[in-house]
Amino acid sequence: MDNAKFKAQVYALKNAQRRLATLSLQERNKMLLTISETLQAEASKIFRANQKDLKRAKSENLSPVLQKRLLFDEDKLQDACEGITQVASLPDPVGKVQERRLLAEGLLLERVAVPIGVIGMIFESRPDALIQIIALCLKSGNGIVLKGGSEARESNAVLVEIIRQALQDFSAGSGWIVHMESREDVQTILKLDDVIDLLIPRGSNVFVRYIMDNTKIPVLGHADGLCAIYVDEEYDLELALKVTVDAKCQYPAVCNAVETLLVHKNIAQEFLPRLKEALAPYSVEIRGEDRVGKIIECKVAVEEDFETEFLDYILAIKIVDSYQEAVDHITRYGSHHTDAIISSNEATAKRFLREVDSADVFWNCSTRFADGFRYGLGAEVGIGTQRIHARGPVGLNGLVTSKWLLAGQGHTVGNVSFNHIDLPLDKSELWSEGQ
Amino acid sequence: MDNAKFKAQVYALKNAQRRLATLSLQERNKMLLTISETLQAEASKIFRANQKDLKRAKSENLSPVLQKRLLFDEDKLQDACEGITQVASLPDPVGKVQERRLLAEGLLLERVAVPIGVIGMIFESRPDALIQIIALCLKSGNGIVLKGGSEARESNAVLVEIIRQALQDFSAGSGWIVHMESREDVQTILKLDDVIDLLIPRGSNVFVRYIMDNTKIPVLGHADGLCAIYVDEEYDLELALKVTVDAKCQYPAVCNAVETLLVHKNIAQEFLPRLKEALAPYSVEIRGEDRVGKIIECKVAVEEDFETEFLDYILAIKIVDSYQEAVDHITRYGSHHTDAIISSNEATAKRFLREVDSADVFWNCSTRFADGFRYGLGAEVGIGTQRIHARGPVGLNGLVTSKWLLAGQGHTVGNVSFNHIDLPLDKSELWSEGQ
Repeated sequence: MDNAKFKAQVYALKNAQRRLATLSLQERNKMLLTISETLQAEASKIFRANQKDLKRAKSENLSPVLQKRLLFDEDKLQDACEGITQVASLPDPVGKVQERRLLAEGLLLERVAVPIGVIGMIFESRPDALIQIIALCLKSGNGIVLKGGSEARESNAVLVEIIRQALQDFSAGSGWIVHMESREDVQTILKLDDVIDLLIPRGSNVFVRYIMDNTKIPVLGHADGLCAIYVDEEYDLELALKVTVDAKCQYPAVCNAVETLLVHKNIAQEFLPRLKEALAPYSVEIRGEDRVGKIIECKVAVEEDFETEFLDYILAIKIVDSYQEAVDHITRYGSHHTDAIISSNEATAKRFLREVDSADVFWNCSTRFADGFRYGLGAEVGIGTQRIHARGPVGLNGLVTSKWLLAGQGHTVGNVSFNHIDLPLDKSELWSEGQ
Repeated sequence: MDNAKFKAQVYALKNAQRRLATLSLQERNKMLLTISETLQAEASKIFRANQKDLKRAKSENLSPVLQKRLLFDEDKLQDACEGITQVASLPDPVGKVQERRLLAEGLLLERVAVPIGVIGMIFESRPDALIQIIALCLKSGNGIVLKGGSEARESNAVLVEIIRQALQDFSAGSGWIVHMESREDVQTILKLDDVIDLLIPRGSNVFVRYIMDNTKIPVLGHADGLCAIYVDEEYDLELALKVTVDAKCQYPAVCNAVETLLVHKNIAQEFLPRLKEALAPYSVEIRGEDRVGKIIECKVAVEEDFETEFLDYILAIKIVDSYQEAVDHITRYGSHHTDAIISSNEATAKRFLREVDSADVFWNCSTRFADGFRYGLGAEVGIGTQRIHARGPVGLNGLVTSKWLLAGQGHTVGNVSFNHIDLPLDKSELWSEGQ
């Protein structure tokens, strides 16, 4: 996109976002449902564009995984439209009262949730991610600057065109969506720290790390998911087997699959042979430290194995002498995404829940639960390992910030006596519903 | 500080912070009160160091304002110690339950507040700011990297020394405080984005802007406080006068003082002469746009006057034709800090509260209320105009993030039926009190 055209679009985006932010919930939901209907009505157009992308991907020998993610067929469309309907049915993330306090007689303070402003999203492959983020931004009143991967360019262009068509009769229109299509646009987006308030990258860990390292815009996401499970000396053997197998094998290519297993020395002799047996049907490759190799046959683990997110049927195993050694290992090697303890000792488990500094810390259940849908957040924006704003699986609440509203009757600081009475949060007196 | 020594300190800092984060509330409060007692016992040592700083400041012709802020006397010490006692009496910011949900039978999810990790603070002049931030970090379980202005180096060094002495008999010690003293250390701190999770600058707007523009670490703060008041056509004249005079004159050198006044054309003829009269006792210089000058005698305002944070007895005034023109002006020229409307029309005022996109939006009260203490937050970390994490006046809650705790009984994602039942937030079952 040339510079002048782009600047004009961004200026229009900010104005359109302000308009979007003042709409009633009913209006925003109506826009969502119209998008869903229009996508369904224009299905054949979408599939044709997607076929072009798929054909080119094949001719360019794109990896089978990416080709699979690129596919947008009837099933994907139905899922996407169901997703939009779900987002429409969620409560309004905007206007929720977070604090409420009478500062002095007649002086009412409220902190309410408001849209962040402009979200940037850079994503690889999946055209369905485009629909999802547009729906989430619309619901939460945010403008969006989008950049999809060039491998999905035909699909993305048609999807944006259809969404604009769906919104053309609404007062807020579709000016709050800016779609960037050329490869250089990624660099442009990374420099837009005076326009974009929050950047959400979706793609491989190399891709996400590149984004994080090359922008001043706050990034919501995670590069690595190096998750560990610690099996304590006090444990239920069958439970430990079941959870470890699920965490490793149910879907190993995702960020919340387990990569490292730490086993207390006092139970290693009993647990490891049974674990090897349980993992055998999935052909999991075990890479074990010295002491592991003395108990079960396995590949020898090197230090790098404890720093690697395999995303595959591979598990690095280490025997630890104590709870503390396990926690120290996780602190040193982990990516602060999701870590779990298997223990039948409540005190040990609760210590782990408090002491392990990760976005998600689990006790006696699979690391695979770290997910916005499973957490009941309704829609997932992403999983963040950054330490400010939102952390772990993030729903619509990650797309809002807050503002303070204060209403008085001519109050001045030179002449006021504070009493600071906290009030219930069930309703707002100062936030109006929008048009 | 040389590089090797610094790296060792930072490594020790991270370990000490982990230890601090596991302490019980009682232990953290005991540490706070011991700091307060030790500061009082060593008062003369502090005053001697401060005298050296003051003497040097005088000989170096430091501005009177900075000299005043540099002073640390008996009154400042008492205020600082009262501040520490207040922080000790506040509820624990850590461990507060923010979400609680039964995902499936026997699978309990909780989101709880936890320390952010390591806070960086770079500040000018005021040695009392050092005490305040150390108290806040201790209470919230965060490590801290501190860098004070060289003008206060003797005072800061002695304060840190006394605080370390106070903490020496506690298990967590004072290793969670790293104090940097040389000028080059500012550059070192700005590059510590892998160590420092949140940076809080305290100083002039030029200083804060420099920090914001030269680091990848998220910054909590504000460079400018360009606050506006809009006086609507439906208004109470006496109320408008009282609020405007307070907002401009009660303490003009601060970020929440008003700089721009927008007056609806239909009431300008009535309001402006009375306002001029009300501001006269404070010798406020009025800079008015053309139409203002036709009603009252004043300096002619140029565009720059509406972009300037005067921090002085100067007020820029513009007459607007409509509510919308006022909102557009604030959107274009404001700094999104604090803006207010004076109106007796509830619908107009509520529209303003919703549509103006600032951290603090007020109705019929002075902009000077935008302050953590006045909001009842107990202790103030700063006022943020950034749009993620915390916004507006920020208390201890700005020094915490959250983590998700999940406890099951061997639950696996391959075999679970979700029901997602929200539970009351009054207590946590998974968060333990600490040692």
